[in-house]
Amino acid sequence: MTRIRQLHLGAFMRPVSLHTGAWRFPGAYPDANFNFAHLKRFAQTLERARFDAFFMADHLAVLNMPVNALKRGQTATSFEPFTLLSALAAVTEKIGLVATASTTFDTPFHVARRFASLDHLSGGRAGWNVVTTSNPDAALNFGLDEHMEHDERYRRAREFMDVVTGLWDSWADDAFVRDVASGEYFDPAKLHVLAHKGDYFSVRGPLNIARPPQGWPVVVQAGSSEAGRQLAAETAEAVFTAQPDLEAGKRFYADVKSRMEKLGRDPDHLKILPGAFVVVGDSLEEAHEKRERLDSFVHYDSGIASLSIALGHDVSALDPDGPLPEIPESNASRSARQRVVDWAREEGLTVRQLAQRVGGYSGLQMVGTPSSIADEMEQWLTEAGSDGFNVMFPYLPAGLDDFVGKVVPELQRRGIFRREYEGNTLRDHLGLPRPANRFFAVDDRSAISQR
Amino acid sequence: MTRIRQLHLGAFMRPVSLHTGAWRFPGAYPDANFNFAHLKRFAQTLERARFDAFFMADHLAVLNMPVNALKRGQTATSFEPFTLLSALAAVTEKIGLVATASTTFDTPFHVARRFASLDHLSGGRAGWNVVTTSNPDAALNFGLDEHMEHDERYRRAREFMDVVTGLWDSWADDAFVRDVASGEYFDPAKLHVLAHKGDYFSVRGPLNIARPPQGWPVVVQAGSSEAGRQLAAETAEAVFTAQPDLEAGKRFYADVKSRMEKLGRDPDHLKILPGAFVVVGDSLEEAHEKRERLDSFVHYDSGIASLSIALGHDVSALDPDGPLPEIPESNASRSARQRVVDWAREEGLTVRQLAQRVGGYSGLQMVGTPSSIADEMEQWLTEAGSDGFNVMFPYLPAGLDDFVGKVVPELQRRGIFRREYEGNTLRDHLGLPRPANRFFAVDDRSAISQR
Repeated sequence: MTRIRQLHLGAFMRPVSLHTGAWRFPGAYPDANFNFAHLKRFAQTLERARFDAFFMADHLAVLNMPVNALKRGQTATSFEPFTLLSALAAVTEKIGLVATASTTFDTPFHVARRFASLDHLSGGRAGWNVVTTSNPDAALNFGLDEHMEHDERYRRAREFMDVVTGLWDSWADDAFVRDVASGEYFDPAKLHVLAHKGDYFSVRGPLNIARPPQGWPVVVQAGSSEAGRQLAAETAEAVFTAQPDLEAGKRFYADVKSRMEKLGRDPDHLKILPGAFVVVGDSLEEAHEKRERLDSFVHYDSGIASLSIALGHDVSALDPDGPLPEIPESNASRSARQRVVDWAREEGLTVRQLAQRVGGYSGLQMVGTPSSIADEMEQWLTEAGSDGFNVMFPYLPAGLDDFVGKVVPELQRRGIFRREYEGNTLRDHLGLPRPANRFFAVDDRSAISQR
Repeated sequence: MTRIRQLHLGAFMRPVSLHTGAWRFPGAYPDANFNFAHLKRFAQTLERARFDAFFMADHLAVLNMPVNALKRGQTATSFEPFTLLSALAAVTEKIGLVATASTTFDTPFHVARRFASLDHLSGGRAGWNVVTTSNPDAALNFGLDEHMEHDERYRRAREFMDVVTGLWDSWADDAFVRDVASGEYFDPAKLHVLAHKGDYFSVRGPLNIARPPQGWPVVVQAGSSEAGRQLAAETAEAVFTAQPDLEAGKRFYADVKSRMEKLGRDPDHLKILPGAFVVVGDSLEEAHEKRERLDSFVHYDSGIASLSIALGHDVSALDPDGPLPEIPESNASRSARQRVVDWAREEGLTVRQLAQRVGGYSGLQMVGTPSSIADEMEQWLTEAGSDGFNVMFPYLPAGLDDFVGKVVPELQRRGIFRREYEGNTLRDHLGLPRPANRFFAVDDRSAISQR
C-alpha cells in the first residue's frame, strides 16, 4: 500500500510576520519579533503542532529603505539567527531549526563550525539556508563599496558550499573514541585535513568540532534565478521559494525536479516549500476582513519603500496614481523584480496599488477557512506544485494560534500531515537521507589523509 | 562603614578543564567538554554558587600540535561559543556568559551583532573576551598564509573595538517606541549611522539590533604583553590573566591599575581575575595526591606538544633529559613564552620536567583544603594581587562540585563572596558602570546624526 503523500510545514519566523502592519493589529504583541519569551512560546507551540522546522531569514543590515518607511516595520531590531536558534534548541526537543547564513559576507570555517555546533546542541535539528545576499547595504557593513555581481556571488557560493561540506566531513562519525584506558580521545586515522585551495577560498581544516549528528545539517536554498535553480538542483535538500500561484509553482517544481533527474539525483531528496501567507477565518468573509484590516495598517511610505527594494530603484518620486514606468536592470533579486513588474503590466496597477500590495504582503496568500486552506494546500501537494509550505503568519500570536489550532487538525484529519514526529532529526522530518562522509566509508578504519 | 572587599569568580569552562588528563580521571565524564546535558548542569551549579560568569575560551583551529599529542586531549571537538552560551542563556537566569571572539579572524559587524543578541537573549549577561589570536594554524583556516604580526594584530584590535562599540551605540536606549497608534516602531531621531572609515575597516552601520541591555556587553581581555596591558587599561572592564604567583600578580595588578589612573579611568572599573587551577581535598595530603594522580594521566607526547606551542617552536626532537637550549623569537604569545623559558632557567628543569608541567597545568595552582584555598584567595584580594579569580577545575564533575560545595561556602562565611546575586546583569555582578551612549545623551531627543 502506497502511503499518501505528506505535507511538510516550515514556519517563517524572522521576521515573525512579513506584513508591515502586523505589530499594530489589535491584540498582537508589538514586540513579537524581538522578545525571547514570546519566541520561545511560538517555537513550543509550533513543535506541539508537529511543524518540520522553525525558519529564520536574515539580513546583514538594516533594510535599505528610507527611514520614514523603515520606522513603520518591526524588522530594524532582530535577534541574530545562531544566538536565537541555539536558545530555542535548549527549550524544544523535535522541531527543526533553520538559519540563513550568507556566502558573500561570511567565511566557510565560521559557517561550517556554527551549523555543526547548532546541530550537536539540538540533537540533529539544524538546517542552513544558503543565501548569496542581494541587499547592497550589507556590502557597506563589510568594507565593500560595490556589491558583488549576481553570477560572481553564485560562483563564490558554490565553492563556499564545497568547503563547508568538506569541513563537516573532517572527522569520521566514529572518530571520537574517548578510550580512558589507552588515553586516546580520538582515532587519528579518522581525521581528515581538507587543505582546500580554490578560486575564492584557501582553508586548511580540520574543523574543530565532531561531524554533525545529521552528517550535514540540511542544506536549504531560496534563490529562484537560473543560477539559483541550478545550484538548488545540484546541492539543496529543501527550497524555500516565493511562487505567486499554483501554475507558477508547478512550473518551478517541474523545472527543479527535472534538473535533479538530469543530474542523477533522486527528486524526492529535495523538498520544495513555497512561502504561503495564511489568514484563517471561521468564514471566508471573516478571513478577508482580517486581511483587509491588516492591510489598513500599512503606511504608503512603507509600501513605496518595499516597492523600491523589490525593484532595486528608488521609486518614491513617482506619481502614486500613475502607471509604473520602465525600470532598468539592477542588482536586486531578478525573480522578485520581474514578478512585481509583471503584476503592474498584467493587472494595470498604479504605483500606489502596487506599493500597497508589496508593502503588505505580495506573495502567495491563502485567505479562508480551515477547510478552504486545507483544500488549497492539498491541491498544491497532489498537483505537484510543492512538497509543503513555509507558512507565514499575518500577526502574532493569534494568526499563528489560528493556523495551529484550526488548519493543522484539518490537515491531520485528511491524513496529509503527521500527528506525531516519527524521528528526532530535521532529516527525519523531511524524509532526507543522511549524507555519507566523502572521506571515510562507514566502518573503514583507514584514513584518506592525515596530518 | 566600608564594605569588605568582595571576590569575583569566573569559571573557566572551555575547555571544562585545561588539564590534559582530566577526562581520564576516575569518575570524570570523558565527554564533559562536549555534552550539552553536562554543560547545562555545570552552568546551573555555578549559578547556584553565585559565580559571576561562565567563561569560554576559544580556538579557531584544531590546536597546532602533533596528532600523537593532540589525540590525548579533549579539545579537538568543542561547541562554538555563541551557540553554547545562547543555549545556556535559555536555561540559566543570573550567571554571566563570556565568550572569546577574535579581532583578527572575524569582522566587527558580525561580532557586534552576536554579542548584542546574546546580551538581549540573556537579559544583560554577555561579555566579550577580546583576543587577537596567537595560533598560526587559525590563519590557515581563513585564507592567510602568514600569521599577522603581533603589533599589527593589536592595532587592528583597537580599531575593531572602536567599530564594535560604535555599532552597539547605533540606537539610543529608548529608540524603539513601538507606538501602535501612530504606527512608528522606532524614533528615527534615535538612530545613528556610524559611517566608520579607518585603516582596517570600513563599516557603515547602523547595527540591526537594539542597544544591548548592558549598553555594551562587558569588555574582557586576556593579553599580558605590553600592547595587551595598555589595550586593557584603555578599554577592558575585566582581565583574565595568567599569573604564576602572588608576587607576579601584584606587579601585574599595580601596573594595569596605574596605567588606568594615568588615563583618567577609575581603577575599580576593571576587575583583574587571574586563572587559578584549584584542587580541593579534605586534607592537604589528599589534595596533593589528587593533583599527582591527575598528572599521571598526562602522556609525554602531550606534554612536549604543549611545550612546543608555548615556545612557538617544535621541540619534540630535543633530548628529554637535557636542559632547554636557546629558543629563538617566534609569533607565539610573548608573555607565555617568556614564563616557560624563565622556569627552565630559574629552576634548572629538564625538557621532560618542563613538558610534564606545561602539559598538565603550568599556571597558578591552589591545591589544598577549603580553608587553605580560601586563605590564598583572601590573601590575593587583600594584598592587591587580584579582584578575584577565573577558576579552573581539574576534572568534571567532582572537581567543580568540590569547589562549589566546599570552598564557596567558606568564602561566603568569611564575608568575601556573595550569598545572593544583588543584580541581574554581568555588570551588576562585577560592579561595573553601564556605558553611556556616545551618540545620545540620556533623555536627549535630538540626534547627532541620521540617515
